[in-house]
Amino acid sequence: MIIVMRDDALQSQIDSVIEKLNHMGFDVHPDQGASRTVLGVIGDTRKIDERDLELEPGVHEVLRVTEPYKLAGRAFHAADTVVRIGDIGIGGDTVAIMAGPCAVEGEEQICFLAEIVKKAGARILRGGAFKPRSSPYSFQGLGKQGLVFLENAAKSQGLLTVTEVMDVQTIDLICSHVDILQIGARNMQNFPLLKEIGKTGKPVLLKRGMSATIEEWLMAAEYIMAEGNPNVILCERGIRTFETYTRNTMDISAIPVIHQRSHLPVVADPSHGTGLRDKVAPMARAAVAAGADGLMIEVHHEPEKALSDGPQSLLPHQFESLMEELRVIAWVLGRKL
Amino acid sequence: MIIVMRDDALQSQIDSVIEKLNHMGFDVHPDQGASRTVLGVIGDTRKIDERDLELEPGVHEVLRVTEPYKLAGRAFHAADTVVRIGDIGIGGDTVAIMAGPCAVEGEEQICFLAEIVKKAGARILRGGAFKPRSSPYSFQGLGKQGLVFLENAAKSQGLLTVTEVMDVQTIDLICSHVDILQIGARNMQNFPLLKEIGKTGKPVLLKRGMSATIEEWLMAAEYIMAEGNPNVILCERGIRTFETYTRNTMDISAIPVIHQRSHLPVVADPSHGTGLRDKVAPMARAAVAAGADGLMIEVHHEPEKALSDGPQSLLPHQFESLMEELRVIAWVLGRKL
Amino acid sequence: MIIVMRDDALQSQIDSVIEKLNHMGFDVHPDQGASRTVLGVIGDTRKIDERDLELEPGVHEVLRVTEPYKLAGRAFHAADTVVRIGDIGIGGDTVAIMAGPCAVEGEEQICFLAEIVKKAGARILRGGAFKPRSSPYSFQGLGKQGLVFLENAAKSQGLLTVTEVMDVQTIDLICSHVDILQIGARNMQNFPLLKEIGKTGKPVLLKRGMSATIEEWLMAAEYIMAEGNPNVILCERGIRTFETYTRNTMDISAIPVIHQRSHLPVVADPSHGTGLRDKVAPMARAAVAAGADGLMIEVHHEPEKALSDGPQSLLPHQFESLMEELRVIAWVLGRKL
Amino acid sequence: MIIVMRDDALQSQIDSVIEKLNHMGFDVHPDQGASRTVLGVIGDTRKIDERDLELEPGVHEVLRVTEPYKLAGRAFHAADTVVRIGDIGIGGDTVAIMAGPCAVEGEEQICFLAEIVKKAGARILRGGAFKPRSSPYSFQGLGKQGLVFLENAAKSQGLLTVTEVMDVQTIDLICSHVDILQIGARNMQNFPLLKEIGKTGKPVLLKRGMSATIEEWLMAAEYIMAEGNPNVILCERGIRTFETYTRNTMDISAIPVIHQRSHLPVVADPSHGTGLRDKVAPMARAAVAAGADGLMIEVHHEPEKALSDGPQSLLPHQFESLMEELRVIAWVLGRKL
Repeated sequence: MIIVMRDDALQSQIDSVIEKLNHMGFDVHPDQGASRTVLGVIGDTRKIDERDLELEPGVHEVLRVTEPYKLAGRAFHAADTVVRIGDIGIGGDTVAIMAGPCAVEGEEQICFLAEIVKKAGARILRGGAFKPRSSPYSFQGLGKQGLVFLENAAKSQGLLTVTEVMDVQTIDLICSHVDILQIGARNMQNFPLLKEIGKTGKPVLLKRGMSATIEEWLMAAEYIMAEGNPNVILCERGIRTFETYTRNTMDISAIPVIHQRSHLPVVADPSHGTGLRDKVAPMARAAVAAGADGLMIEVHHEPEKALSDGPQSLLPHQFESLMEELRVIAWVLGRKL
Repeated sequence: MIIVMRDDALQSQIDSVIEKLNHMGFDVHPDQGASRTVLGVIGDTRKIDERDLELEPGVHEVLRVTEPYKLAGRAFHAADTVVRIGDIGIGGDTVAIMAGPCAVEGEEQICFLAEIVKKAGARILRGGAFKPRSSPYSFQGLGKQGLVFLENAAKSQGLLTVTEVMDVQTIDLICSHVDILQIGARNMQNFPLLKEIGKTGKPVLLKRGMSATIEEWLMAAEYIMAEGNPNVILCERGIRTFETYTRNTMDISAIPVIHQRSHLPVVADPSHGTGLRDKVAPMARAAVAAGADGLMIEVHHEPEKALSDGPQSLLPHQFESLMEELRVIAWVLGRKL
Repeated sequence: MIIVMRDDALQSQIDSVIEKLNHMGFDVHPDQGASRTVLGVIGDTRKIDERDLELEPGVHEVLRVTEPYKLAGRAFHAADTVVRIGDIGIGGDTVAIMAGPCAVEGEEQICFLAEIVKKAGARILRGGAFKPRSSPYSFQGLGKQGLVFLENAAKSQGLLTVTEVMDVQTIDLICSHVDILQIGARNMQNFPLLKEIGKTGKPVLLKRGMSATIEEWLMAAEYIMAEGNPNVILCERGIRTFETYTRNTMDISAIPVIHQRSHLPVVADPSHGTGLRDKVAPMARAAVAAGADGLMIEVHHEPEKALSDGPQSLLPHQFESLMEELRVIAWVLGRKL
Repeated sequence: MIIVMRDDALQSQIDSVIEKLNHMGFDVHPDQGASRTVLGVIGDTRKIDERDLELEPGVHEVLRVTEPYKLAGRAFHAADTVVRIGDIGIGGDTVAIMAGPCAVEGEEQICFLAEIVKKAGARILRGGAFKPRSSPYSFQGLGKQGLVFLENAAKSQGLLTVTEVMDVQTIDLICSHVDILQIGARNMQNFPLLKEIGKTGKPVLLKRGMSATIEEWLMAAEYIMAEGNPNVILCERGIRTFETYTRNTMDISAIPVIHQRSHLPVVADPSHGTGLRDKVAPMARAAVAAGADGLMIEVHHEPEKALSDGPQSLLPHQFESLMEELRVIAWVLGRKL
């Protein structure tokens, strides 16, 4: 942490800030410039609220030089993390494809779709059993029954599974049925949930909050990792901007930024990122071209009858064509599906 | 709901959309314009996903004419709601002041502050016992002990209390100690939490999510009200924008907009809305001048020692001066503190 | 400027960065911390592109400690600037009210409104002659004729005038007719225009761009001031956010922030800031309560016939009531209208 | 345009709105629903300010069913526009690459870079002669001399040219030296400039404003086209969001959205869109994968000495590698470079 004093700061003000910091247990290196004094603060400054120092008389500005995240950052963990689940590694030279319906709607539906996505080359089956809906009047998911359907459909095809966890109460139940726990965008800062999921040790797909900065997203990963769970997969799914022609603005540039700042794998969800079927394939290709470690894609064979998010689901034949395109683009980056 | 067909839509496409809607149980009134056909859809269209129709061949655009909220909206509830708690009404001609520290830090601290805010004219004591923090390494609150301290301090001064609920597990505990349950910005779309709090019937202070539209905020209120709890108080606390000189951009214009769209009372939290002490008083005055039904203000006598958010807490004498100013501004709007 | 080296930076990398900076003419003070080296750069670093240094091997982060604006900032100009125009001072203890129609539509219209706003207490008459419209099919203003009408109407009532300048070609013409040149939000970064207006020395009302940070806004003021014109009045008029229930989000908190960072006066435009008549009075009161040095308000006696922005214009009687309310709120802050 | 009346609207209010619209020259088709009356307005409603009607007693909401743009939209121009310049077509099955330095800095520099980008496969040479800079203290370009250098360098390599026009005064000069006129993001709503450039008939590269919606961007194109110039190429260059780890958020999804809404070609500028060299290649690949009709890329052989935006310029060898990758990705979409 760096504290920049005002040009007209009195020596007594500078001394008082140094004393305050010493009192808090930090070493301070003052640097007397031509016009201003700058104080370097040595120690683990993550617990300091910088505003406390900004309000001290004579202080011009307080600047952090350490990111608030440590376990999730590259600084102390240079090598890429590969999250291993069964025989799959997410974050290595394979682009992992997770596909399936938005919600599990019945046994037949999920079995039918499991077969389709498997054939096209997906390795992980997605499907919601507990659904967060912005209206209390919308379909809320099949619950436990949905988990069982999902698990069985996946097993019959040799697929792994991912589903969303909405609250602490259902963590154990979900852990007993699926391979990857998904934390939805709206729960990215549900701290009690992050902590409990951190304790499970299970692979976690952590979606970026709709208005979360990349720093906040990595801090949410830090919450999980601080409980002892290193198996975090980040998932970009679109952020909120002023644009109204799209539901969200998918932040493709977050992919190279995450790869620079963090060792964790990052995948993309073009279905939620765009909200409309005809935008899904272009954005899926774009994400892989930008270096995404995987994709999560909604597929439905009867989207107009889907109970949730049908309009953003690809039809089976669209998904198959997309997979062909993705193979070539992945190859350009030295990867395979 | 209105469906606008494309200029070049075929009659067969128009018929197909009408048939689809009839099949879903809706009446359709077609209006043949000079260049386009427009379909009026009659019935409770809140369960329709408009994207389903946007994807039909020949459809140009789908427009909602009904807000998705019903209980929270003015359309079916023209009169202002006054939430009554003890002898206080929030939403009437009194501007309700809730004040106190960000977090309860100890018995002495909360008792000292309860006396101060009471003397200055506040009617409700705030204080966090369970704290959502963006870093897992920060102070997380005193928990149950904090609730007891808060309750006792308030009782000794004849104040009511408000504190944040972070998860379903602690609802009962918190209900047994405080008068108003606060839902924090990060939990505005924690739907399981909204539902359970809806079942309690307790007055709820529902903070606006950092990037929530006013419509989403009212839908969150709808979740609570749909469970039978009409006692919702909305709280504006700043939204996320591109500006970096302030933590959040406090959306003062949300106050008159809420008063137009909803019958629920709306208060403002200039402490979180600005994040720095010297901006709190100007924004508190602005909120009351714009018609806020109350304020939530952080006050601390030793902010530099506060365990949470000290920099945005007013000092006791600043709070007293502010209260004097607010009395005059409230009078301009025909109200009192 | 502060350069933070990576934890694992080599001494040769540190030396190379220091050499580069020395070569550019800067002194460097290295500070060897426990884990990282931090370099303090001494000199006028405003011309450095910090990304140049971020890309050097071994560099972790580059932090500015000086704002890029100098003339517009408080650091070298502690006292509030009062812009004097005729017998009026903007920025002192008077809250300056500028009012009138969005566009000058004819001689009779502007004379009628000049009388009304004068009676209610305004000191400056507004009215557009050259109008920036987002559609090429909309009314574009009366041009030169409008300027003459505005000037005459103002003179007959003893009012000053303000109107928008859209391009360099019309600066001379406008200077010969009006007292204050307005730069619209869309032209806040039209640098050739800023420079030429800077050369006139005339008082300038500089609107904040729709998506301009406060720093960029002050840099636009810097452009004008660097040409020798210190008479800049800043004007907040709403920023673009994700919210759709309002046209813009009026950033009331920009008012106290500007007062802290800059010595220039700042006024608010609640008409453009909200876009709808019934939100204008609440936001006008809020702006004055937050410390605005003035207001710009659109008034029209037949808004439904107005050629531009009628829906956001106050009716004459609404303007009069508002002025009464503002007098009391200004008094709370020790000011008068 | 559709006008939705309130549930409790009186018949006299409905009649009054109809009368008002008839008076303005529009036909009205009322549709009496179970709970509300909806009025369909027939005619060219682009000149109506919808807020005028929103303020009428009894009106609930006003909805547009026609986009405000006509010349730029797909509705009346279904086939893709290919802008032809010399032997190049932008918008067809070739992905057009424009490359070169941010600013022309001297004859030798631009000649050297022209050769490099030509060899790698670019067809159009970029280079700024008049530079819009956010600080008045930064390098502002070589002006006329820069245009001559650019023209000569391009001719010697058989390349076309593109450069930015900042004001009306320099249009003629620039037209006499370059092939494509660029309108920068800050000038996207500089309406006098748009009109004058519209009159030239020259191909125009219209950058999206930093906070412009896609609708506003297309309206800016409409301004140019309404003057008789159909040769508009749109250019996505990143929008402003809350994220701070990147300069801008490049909106890759704007590419498929433009292709759906408009017949105009759309290219992408990953150099400005990201602001840092190491993000340029991933985002260039992503843009082509999403369907961009071309790219504008900054290349510099000595970026650390560049007078403008060196940090976002690719090195020659990076540009060559990128071109190889882009060839394969373009092939996936059935296109070539």
